[in-house]
Amino acid sequence: MLSRDLEGFYCRTPLADPERFLLLHYDFETVVDPEEAAAHLCQEQSTAQWKRPGKEEDYRVKHGAKVVAQVHGQVPTAAFSVLKEKHPVSTACSVTVAHPHVNFGARIPNMLTAICGEGVFFSPGIAAIKLMDITFPENYLRCFEGPRFGIEGFRDLIDVHDRPILFGIPKPNLGLSPEDFSALAAEAWRGGLDVAKDDEMLADSPWSLLTERLRLLKKARIDCQRATGEKKLYLVNITDEVDRILELLDVVEREGEGNAVMLNTMTMGLSAIRMLRKNARMPIAGHFAGTAPSVGVTNFGIHSKVIVKLQRILGCDIVIFPGFGGRMKTADAEVMENIAECVKPLGHIPPALPVPAGSNWAGSLGELYAKLKSADFGIVPGRAVFDHPLGARGGARGLRQGWEAAASGVALAKYAEDHRELALSIEAEKTVG
Amino acid sequence: MLSRDLEGFYCRTPLADPERFLLLHYDFETVVDPEEAAAHLCQEQSTAQWKRPGKEEDYRVKHGAKVVAQVHGQVPTAAFSVLKEKHPVSTACSVTVAHPHVNFGARIPNMLTAICGEGVFFSPGIAAIKLMDITFPENYLRCFEGPRFGIEGFRDLIDVHDRPILFGIPKPNLGLSPEDFSALAAEAWRGGLDVAKDDEMLADSPWSLLTERLRLLKKARIDCQRATGEKKLYLVNITDEVDRILELLDVVEREGEGNAVMLNTMTMGLSAIRMLRKNARMPIAGHFAGTAPSVGVTNFGIHSKVIVKLQRILGCDIVIFPGFGGRMKTADAEVMENIAECVKPLGHIPPALPVPAGSNWAGSLGELYAKLKSADFGIVPGRAVFDHPLGARGGARGLRQGWEAAASGVALAKYAEDHRELALSIEAEKTVG
Repeated sequence: MLSRDLEGFYCRTPLADPERFLLLHYDFETVVDPEEAAAHLCQEQSTAQWKRPGKEEDYRVKHGAKVVAQVHGQVPTAAFSVLKEKHPVSTACSVTVAHPHVNFGARIPNMLTAICGEGVFFSPGIAAIKLMDITFPENYLRCFEGPRFGIEGFRDLIDVHDRPILFGIPKPNLGLSPEDFSALAAEAWRGGLDVAKDDEMLADSPWSLLTERLRLLKKARIDCQRATGEKKLYLVNITDEVDRILELLDVVEREGEGNAVMLNTMTMGLSAIRMLRKNARMPIAGHFAGTAPSVGVTNFGIHSKVIVKLQRILGCDIVIFPGFGGRMKTADAEVMENIAECVKPLGHIPPALPVPAGSNWAGSLGELYAKLKSADFGIVPGRAVFDHPLGARGGARGLRQGWEAAASGVALAKYAEDHRELALSIEAEKTVG
Repeated sequence: MLSRDLEGFYCRTPLADPERFLLLHYDFETVVDPEEAAAHLCQEQSTAQWKRPGKEEDYRVKHGAKVVAQVHGQVPTAAFSVLKEKHPVSTACSVTVAHPHVNFGARIPNMLTAICGEGVFFSPGIAAIKLMDITFPENYLRCFEGPRFGIEGFRDLIDVHDRPILFGIPKPNLGLSPEDFSALAAEAWRGGLDVAKDDEMLADSPWSLLTERLRLLKKARIDCQRATGEKKLYLVNITDEVDRILELLDVVEREGEGNAVMLNTMTMGLSAIRMLRKNARMPIAGHFAGTAPSVGVTNFGIHSKVIVKLQRILGCDIVIFPGFGGRMKTADAEVMENIAECVKPLGHIPPALPVPAGSNWAGSLGELYAKLKSADFGIVPGRAVFDHPLGARGGARGLRQGWEAAASGVALAKYAEDHRELALSIEAEKTVG
């Protein structure tokens, strides 16, 4: 039986005004009574001390977070918990907390402070906790614009409607002169690549100034568009100190049509995506560099789909996250959830293009198509295009052939019999694989 | 024996030009040969593919990260690794990587992309990895200004030179009107508090506009300074969307002397601290809300001292981080390391005031003084001041008495015998404790 104090952080009947609340879904392990732990979780993430001494008042009414659902069972205490020695067994709980958004407003850093700040991660008796998901009410969601283009708008821009989008990262990712970088991008565009993309490590660097890359890639892009009859795009990494982003955006926008911009989201902070969305007239991509430390553990931190969902809500047209395969250390189910976060209905927010990245090659297209049962995705190979034995043009051709095989339902090896670039891609993949 | 390819990511002799490199200290677990894993770690975080096919070139020379030191031994594979089922036993390694800073420059988001981005957390064969520390060369460090005030400058501002700094957070943290908030701050200032501080959850909110709080606290502060003969300060949380920070800073600066500003660092991104430092003429505090997801696990993510060190380098005069005691779930040794990161010699960068936070009360002063063997720290109680049976004035008096006891070497209980506020603080702590 909870104390009256703690009972005040429970709502045992349906919420009378659900529009007032974000629903926060946490999994946690506790070494105390799980109902008590969940009440503390709500108290600590909202009002903490909820009245002044000697006053008749209760700030929980307007500002208190409330437990609205809870299930639990016993498990071994997580390996990393400092409480493990004292408490080898704990109780695992899944809890839904209704947190009133008046506490932080439609502001991302303030929201994060509430939903994954001190109150959550230092709540008494909780050994380990993970923020699994957020459900937003319509009125809160309406404060955010979402992607300007979304999947449809982005497809319109590059005039590709019936197949996955082929991004590619010129390699080596560090040290290439703008001339060499541009020459590689041009080769890949000629071979069939849609989007030449800066590596997340490449930025506005002394050996490769952004203005130089833009100038050269514009010329190359126009040439390739003329030669191939296809639209081409350059996705520019403008990750930099946060007070330089809008200046770099201006530089990219001066180049006009045919560009998109990328931020390494979590190295900058999610709020930078929103700032960019307010100012950019071109597509925005969010890259997962810097996300892993918060999302890479099973029962602690933040679920990666929360980060994907927030990027979409804040304005990313393209969300790049770890995809399938051992190298990306992400369970298949988690990759599928992240893909779903990009495309599932979310109020007025359009879908964002999911790009499950990492070791992508020609064969990834068929595999992803089979798993997703949709062509609404992108791949972002590096080596598979730019270390292809026939060079970047051959590598990109191999990608297109990989898709042709998938789309026509022919086995990759069979299709490769009379498609040399694909055959060489398959060979190369075997030696890396 | 490593392949020639991988051997290129080792430097087996002392670095010829150490000023070119950040030294990155990682602990990792691997299921492959540890020398091979460390080479991959360097390759993935720097050049990845380091030459174009068919060209005689080697981008590793200028851009490659290099293993410069390594030790290892066998351990059980970490519980959270998706590789655990296949590989129950792995090798634990501590490795020092020399990463050339030309790859990212003196830019924090780009640096983070390299040192804790995709290349690090998705390096082949590495089951789990944690960035433990960074050693900066002088020439790189000189690109950063560090705190404008530091401990000495901050002490000068509030004219407190011989004891710890007493911060306090008016509670309830959410919902108080600016009038009520200001009245509580004034009471605490009268009782002996140095700095009234916004809770990390409080910001520029509809029920408590920043302009209103500033106006009322300015008046209260001047009154209290006159009445007590002591300098008082208001630490304002300006955490908000990143493109609103400088506007809020302007609002705070218009109020002039007697204010300092706070950001919830990791909810905004470290780069926001640097932006603030460039523009603020008042002290800056960094709060740990949002840090736990990246730093809360023993063998994965980022060590908390890296975040503390970066906040100091980027310009925090005050760094607030989880302190001692079970509630803060941080090992004592880690708290001590974070305190050391604030104050130890670091080129031209002045020391920042360490504030080991969480459940601070009058008794924390003596405990911290004993552990730190220095009075160069702050405490940041909430409840202990603002839920004191005699109100905030009594709570703050209790703090001062707690310090008097510690400074004069008298046991707390003994000193409380003829200091009523302290006696009541001790009582209250027992019922909470």
